[in-house]
Amino acid sequence: MGCSSADAKLAAETLLSADLRGIDSHGVARLSGYIRLWEVGRIKADPRISIIHESPSTAVVDGDGGLGLVVAPFAMQLAIQKAESAGTGWVSVQNSNHFGIAAVHAMRALDKDMVGIAMTNASALVAPTFSTERMLGTNPICVAIPAGEEPAFVADMATTTAANGKLEILQRKGEDTPEGWIQDSEGRSVTDAHALKKGGALLPLGGDREHGSHKGYALGAIVDIFSAVFSGANYGPWVPPFPAYVALPLDPPGKGIGHFFGAMRIDAFRKAEDFKYNMDNWIRRFRSAKPVEGQSRVLIPGDPEREAAAFRQEHGIPIHPSVWSDLDEVGQKFGIKL
Amino acid sequence: MGCSSADAKLAAETLLSADLRGIDSHGVARLSGYIRLWEVGRIKADPRISIIHESPSTAVVDGDGGLGLVVAPFAMQLAIQKAESAGTGWVSVQNSNHFGIAAVHAMRALDKDMVGIAMTNASALVAPTFSTERMLGTNPICVAIPAGEEPAFVADMATTTAANGKLEILQRKGEDTPEGWIQDSEGRSVTDAHALKKGGALLPLGGDREHGSHKGYALGAIVDIFSAVFSGANYGPWVPPFPAYVALPLDPPGKGIGHFFGAMRIDAFRKAEDFKYNMDNWIRRFRSAKPVEGQSRVLIPGDPEREAAAFRQEHGIPIHPSVWSDLDEVGQKFGIKL
Repeated sequence: MGCSSADAKLAAETLLSADLRGIDSHGVARLSGYIRLWEVGRIKADPRISIIHESPSTAVVDGDGGLGLVVAPFAMQLAIQKAESAGTGWVSVQNSNHFGIAAVHAMRALDKDMVGIAMTNASALVAPTFSTERMLGTNPICVAIPAGEEPAFVADMATTTAANGKLEILQRKGEDTPEGWIQDSEGRSVTDAHALKKGGALLPLGGDREHGSHKGYALGAIVDIFSAVFSGANYGPWVPPFPAYVALPLDPPGKGIGHFFGAMRIDAFRKAEDFKYNMDNWIRRFRSAKPVEGQSRVLIPGDPEREAAAFRQEHGIPIHPSVWSDLDEVGQKFGIKL
Repeated sequence: MGCSSADAKLAAETLLSADLRGIDSHGVARLSGYIRLWEVGRIKADPRISIIHESPSTAVVDGDGGLGLVVAPFAMQLAIQKAESAGTGWVSVQNSNHFGIAAVHAMRALDKDMVGIAMTNASALVAPTFSTERMLGTNPICVAIPAGEEPAFVADMATTTAANGKLEILQRKGEDTPEGWIQDSEGRSVTDAHALKKGGALLPLGGDREHGSHKGYALGAIVDIFSAVFSGANYGPWVPPFPAYVALPLDPPGKGIGHFFGAMRIDAFRKAEDFKYNMDNWIRRFRSAKPVEGQSRVLIPGDPEREAAAFRQEHGIPIHPSVWSDLDEVGQKFGIKL
């Protein structure tokens, strides 16, 4: 495509981290989609990423239309540098594209003894509470917190009841969704996993008003505003779609997709060893909470993905046949044999 | 009680703001509870609030066992000062008490052209996903974002499906809760509004695993860690209870209750007028999203509370007879006639 080899390596590592952690929807399965966006001129292979505004603890980065997999590590690195001098660093990004999983970016802070935060907006699939219109993306938030002897706390979540990847699994299996995941074009909660194609929308975390969907809507909105109103990216229904064949929204108020990153040095609050001692204590106490009957244990955020990564590191990463054939097609385009 | 008159005024303003915004559970109804905590020596009327650690963009505050209504404004003011010089300010607080509603603290940033953030931990009423044990408080998060001509975006939410105040309303009316709000002592979802008294627990936002309760659990956990592991306050099941007659947890790992505050100068990211122009555009676009049948409009976070405040400013604040009699009792204790 014309990426530098350093950028290509960085992007590949980010995609593989998703596959390793069991988030198959955000790993190499996305590669052919990125290529199609590049083919229609919506992703630049050799972006000139730059800082367009900054203060001691903040910056805004212009991703120059580059691949989010490359723009995001630049911005996260900048947040970490700001945190080294100012205690914390906060970077909002305009003019970027899909950045893969949030966790891989947030987790870059962990070995610096920092808390890492990553979020991104995405094209609109989610209806606000009381609306039939798709206004927000699944807008994930990741918060990664270092511990001492225990593995880090890593919460990485879409601000919807269920991430789009889970819906895709049900679609492939031909199964219905639980109530509270999705609504039809009239805003009625349905269990049809294909409702999105028929003008429906994903539901914010909570599902409906009685179960707190206004909170999921607010969380998705905060991600949108931090990622795009802080930076000058597109927001709400104007965020560019991932599929290259879907037309761009008209009259966009900003540039590309927006992200937001944070890094907080733990010793900017308290001696790192005291923080880690108490974080270990926090994790152990929660892990030892009494489980309900039928469950063997209470999980700490990040446990399932870390365990998936350990298993796949040893046993390999299963690749779905359709993903394999997509990769083969991409390989042929560039004269690379799988 | 021995509060300075400045502190008494500040605390009264904070309580009245809650009543004005329609959050009756966190207004003057709490006053008698604060007095009882002071009577048993768990709240200090004349605390020496101090900064015990800091960096250019961060600080940790020791509330010296003071009323949260007084400690929180000190800490929020410090976050704002840090943001003035460093772009953002982040303050974690130990050794505090109940701080009222989060919104009133976060909103102090708005007229400085800053985003304000406030969160607090609280005594354990909430079970993590898959657990029967109460491990977290309702741990609210407030994010207040200034706009230009539009009123500010103010999202203030407990990280549970429903705040405890909503449960108390159903208890008073003798009504059941919807599914997904509460579980019994065995971890089964129930609709008994009195299940907490029988060893049950509130449920994290999402309600159950299938509907994303692991996300609500993670959000509550992040609030707990930012408020207490950053600061040296108590966390998880060790957070001191609000009722003065409930014994303090044994072997506390920290001091008092913890809070966390943030202030982000909007012009540390982008010219304030550009931010406000786009924030107005964001708000207007979301407000104009198509409503579902039976609803007249789509709300922006903060709309209901702002409208309640406008109504009550004009028509007065209704006080429940039991709150009135509590206030009368407090008045008699201190020789003040209502």
